[in-house]
Amino acid sequence: MSTPRAWAVVLASGGMDSTVTLALAAQEYRLAMLHIAYGQRTEARELKAFHALADFYQAERRLVARLDHLKQIGGSSLTDPALAVERAHLERKDIPSSYVPFRNAHLLSIAVSWGETLAARKIFIGAVAEDSSGYPDCRPEYYEAFNRVIALGTKPETCIEIATPVIHWRKSEIVRQGLALKAPFELTWSCYQAEDVACGVCDSCALRLRAFQEAGAEDPIPYATRPVYARAEGPSR
Amino acid sequence: MSTPRAWAVVLASGGMDSTVTLALAAQEYRLAMLHIAYGQRTEARELKAFHALADFYQAERRLVARLDHLKQIGGSSLTDPALAVERAHLERKDIPSSYVPFRNAHLLSIAVSWGETLAARKIFIGAVAEDSSGYPDCRPEYYEAFNRVIALGTKPETCIEIATPVIHWRKSEIVRQGLALKAPFELTWSCYQAEDVACGVCDSCALRLRAFQEAGAEDPIPYATRPVYARAEGPSR
Repeated sequence: MSTPRAWAVVLASGGMDSTVTLALAAQEYRLAMLHIAYGQRTEARELKAFHALADFYQAERRLVARLDHLKQIGGSSLTDPALAVERAHLERKDIPSSYVPFRNAHLLSIAVSWGETLAARKIFIGAVAEDSSGYPDCRPEYYEAFNRVIALGTKPETCIEIATPVIHWRKSEIVRQGLALKAPFELTWSCYQAEDVACGVCDSCALRLRAFQEAGAEDPIPYATRPVYARAEGPSR
Repeated sequence: MSTPRAWAVVLASGGMDSTVTLALAAQEYRLAMLHIAYGQRTEARELKAFHALADFYQAERRLVARLDHLKQIGGSSLTDPALAVERAHLERKDIPSSYVPFRNAHLLSIAVSWGETLAARKIFIGAVAEDSSGYPDCRPEYYEAFNRVIALGTKPETCIEIATPVIHWRKSEIVRQGLALKAPFELTWSCYQAEDVACGVCDSCALRLRAFQEAGAEDPIPYATRPVYARAEGPSR
């Protein structure tokens, strides 16, 4: 008889990075999939993607949590209708308007609370550090610091760590690995502003299209427009 | 002309420790008061206390956030009707059933997100380390670790730190300081299970009654019973 596998809580937005992270987690852990609805523009479409992915990976548990206060608090173009979603600006160095103040701490907190009741060993999150949107809460040192908060803020017998398997990958590498793992990209959703046909021009669409273009693959979801974003690619990080 | 005072977000449960923390914050900062409703048994009573305190201290901003997923997740006698609230057991060394898994990280995350949009400088929380309930997320090192998460997970221009002014105080010291600051204890609520007349026998009532008894003061709220919990008091920490 084999030992039962340990639980992992997987944060699944319905997007590409978390889906490849999910595909990696599914190889080793029992899946408790967690989705957060926080009043973002494409909330309904993301939720649909989440459930399709949970069905695909036959997750044993799924939880959808609502964080309505992130919309009350505002401060982001993702949750505040008064702020426009910007067109992509992939070479920027500043923090984009889609930054939701301190958002990932909320996601991780829910994952840890749930994980503690399940005696889970890991929290998987599809954060991508450098080849991404410039959010401060996507850097490796942020997750190291959060792991210390988990160790100090939970019961002594709780042993949960955050896993960020794609954090150092280029987005094109995420596409390549996802294809190798047969991750169902056709079920995912990344666009920040549209729910039927992806806009192709927001930061999130641009990063995704560029990643598929650089990986030499076709993105299976529909786009209103597919600009060419590919750049000359250096060695994979 | 004086410089405008900086904002502080003050987490106010409606209880005694956070009210004395609030009284301290009010001396220096503009008040943005935050209350979290998470399906705890005495939610309505705590909310009433929160608004009464916000009125008393003339808070310029107030926010009530709902965390319904803490009830969905369960694992605590405070949020799960299937688990009984235990009678007080003040000398215990284990973690009581009222521990809500990783709760304070949720509270702090909301406070930081809100604080970041206000350009606040401080998050005040009335955590008490040793002379309290044995929750792991009330220890000073937990808040030090969380401060590092804040520094790494927010915008570069954001400069928010957690303040825990009562963390090393005995509860009797909190009562004494609160009386000196004219904190309105009559507006506060601490009981874990009753909303009209405090039970006097849950952990939270016992800690509060003992504190008032040791401070030689009368607790102005009504109790169904007022057992004597006072112990011989050593030097104040």
